[in-house]
Amino acid sequence: MSDGTTPDAPHPKSRGAARRAMRRGPTIDDVAELAGVSRGTVSRVLNGARYVSPAALKAVERAMRQTGYTVNQSARSLVTKRSDAVAFVLSEPQERLFEDPNFSVLLRACTQALAAHDISLILMLESDEDERDRVLRYVRGGHVDGVLLISAHSGDSLIASLARGDVPTVACGKPAGDIGIPYVAAEDREGARQMTRHLVEQGRKRIGMIGCPQIAGGAERLEGYRDVLGRRALRRLVVDAPSYSHSAGAEAMRRLLATSPDIDAVFAASDSLAAGALTELRRAGRGVPDDVAVGGFDDSRIARETDPALTTIRQPLELVSRNMVDVLLRLIRREPAASRLLPTELVVRESA
Amino acid sequence: MSDGTTPDAPHPKSRGAARRAMRRGPTIDDVAELAGVSRGTVSRVLNGARYVSPAALKAVERAMRQTGYTVNQSARSLVTKRSDAVAFVLSEPQERLFEDPNFSVLLRACTQALAAHDISLILMLESDEDERDRVLRYVRGGHVDGVLLISAHSGDSLIASLARGDVPTVACGKPAGDIGIPYVAAEDREGARQMTRHLVEQGRKRIGMIGCPQIAGGAERLEGYRDVLGRRALRRLVVDAPSYSHSAGAEAMRRLLATSPDIDAVFAASDSLAAGALTELRRAGRGVPDDVAVGGFDDSRIARETDPALTTIRQPLELVSRNMVDVLLRLIRREPAASRLLPTELVVRESA
Repeated sequence: MSDGTTPDAPHPKSRGAARRAMRRGPTIDDVAELAGVSRGTVSRVLNGARYVSPAALKAVERAMRQTGYTVNQSARSLVTKRSDAVAFVLSEPQERLFEDPNFSVLLRACTQALAAHDISLILMLESDEDERDRVLRYVRGGHVDGVLLISAHSGDSLIASLARGDVPTVACGKPAGDIGIPYVAAEDREGARQMTRHLVEQGRKRIGMIGCPQIAGGAERLEGYRDVLGRRALRRLVVDAPSYSHSAGAEAMRRLLATSPDIDAVFAASDSLAAGALTELRRAGRGVPDDVAVGGFDDSRIARETDPALTTIRQPLELVSRNMVDVLLRLIRREPAASRLLPTELVVRESA
Repeated sequence: MSDGTTPDAPHPKSRGAARRAMRRGPTIDDVAELAGVSRGTVSRVLNGARYVSPAALKAVERAMRQTGYTVNQSARSLVTKRSDAVAFVLSEPQERLFEDPNFSVLLRACTQALAAHDISLILMLESDEDERDRVLRYVRGGHVDGVLLISAHSGDSLIASLARGDVPTVACGKPAGDIGIPYVAAEDREGARQMTRHLVEQGRKRIGMIGCPQIAGGAERLEGYRDVLGRRALRRLVVDAPSYSHSAGAEAMRRLLATSPDIDAVFAASDSLAAGALTELRRAGRGVPDDVAVGGFDDSRIARETDPALTTIRQPLELVSRNMVDVLLRLIRREPAASRLLPTELVVRESA
């Protein structure tokens, strides 16, 4: 690649390419010839693929400037093999898509943000290993330009595979473990602190937690609770739920009442979990908030529909969505893009 | 292609290909050489594309037998350029996906039926012309092997484009107009007759209809109602709703009460419409079923959740889903596949 010429001067043997490009509008072949690289290398640069050497990248960018080559948006997918589609991969059983209103908010907001760039969103579910294999095969088959990974679980082999591969990927919420996939998340830890402080300020003494540490963001919420309570976060006051669902919340509340019948508040790591806890508390004859205060996390539609309405932490999911799309588009264009955290807010209603 | 040799005898110039195929296992190139066609033609045959001449098809099939070429399932997508994915395209705004439980049943059942063939389902929504263009570009870009078209509206440019193109497509419900796309549907017309007969048998005299003739299946339901009532299907008794939604049902019921305050029964073309009609009847102070009997169509979850519970027509949506997948896989394999109708059933609950 190093040919000794000064920057921006075409390679001597390639002046013909530059002249031809001037006459009839530059093509990808002109760029390749001028840069002294293969058409495939130019394509990889346009496509945002990693693994193009810095020298080749510089040569291609210079050749694009010299030829005046610009990517025609409508022809782009032909030239670059871009699919102009992004996969929204939900690591949950299908019923969770319909049960948890967070997903429809994320789906709508991501769809809108991508539409502004004329990019399709395709939804794929992966709830078992077979589906995971199929999703991975599909996204690696060049059928999407990138992946928005929703509700990633710790130990999810898809995450590990995507982190190793070259498919641009952004996670919603911080995945468990330091696996190198950029993420966009609400400030889960600070949000959990806000809720726990609020419960303390209400005079609550034995504040339990229904956590879900194996799902993206869950570990941070548990940390925030512990940050505020310190030694008062007794082991018997913390139960793990297997998912963020309503039924998991009811079941966790049942265990919490069994181990800690003297509990006077509970912070559930999602609104669905909190709604399940409310159901179980009513069944057990405990008044909310008089006997037990309940705090949720999300500020989804559920929080307004429970009786009593949930005091909760608002996650700015539309902002999260727009930022996920922005980070993903940067990764697709091979621009640097760091993880982003967005602020949460305490919303006080009736349950705490 | 006609070389004068007897069937199953290799083309003289291609005996080398047959011998090589014997030694190291046949490849797609062996099949192409032996058949005297291009590798692309073999690929199109394997891929189930239309537009392969009968002569070429016969030659390729013969060559596959002679070489013993078999499609390795796991390598198939590499060989044939199949994506091993099918698009589930929903022609509705996103909120309808979450509002109407029919879609989650179809989604789950189609996903399961495809999973049995190791094929992914990808969900795409198309609720405006821009999305429609993107969906069409994507499915024609070779990113899916076929399309399951859900909730097709009349005049939908996507349907017309798919009908003209070479992407295997099956519609859920009979699309309006004779456009040549195979479909799988409940017996909408017969189901509508069952409900209308039931209302007549209950002694109802002025039976209205909330129809939705521009959406797949809707025209048949209106026909079934007219089959039974004949001249009693007065024009003032029939209102068209713009969609199958709850709000459209309430609005249509409001119009029906205005034009026909003496109405004593209404058949709504979906459970969501019927639920909307119930809401409006309650608001208007009419008792159900005493003043006005209400019949729905679907037997979705909604029918069991309304108060009073809905008398409705059961659509066998899981069976519809399995049959849609079966028809689509046949089309992908270039096998003939006709449209299919599946039986409906009257389910009597409280509303009529």
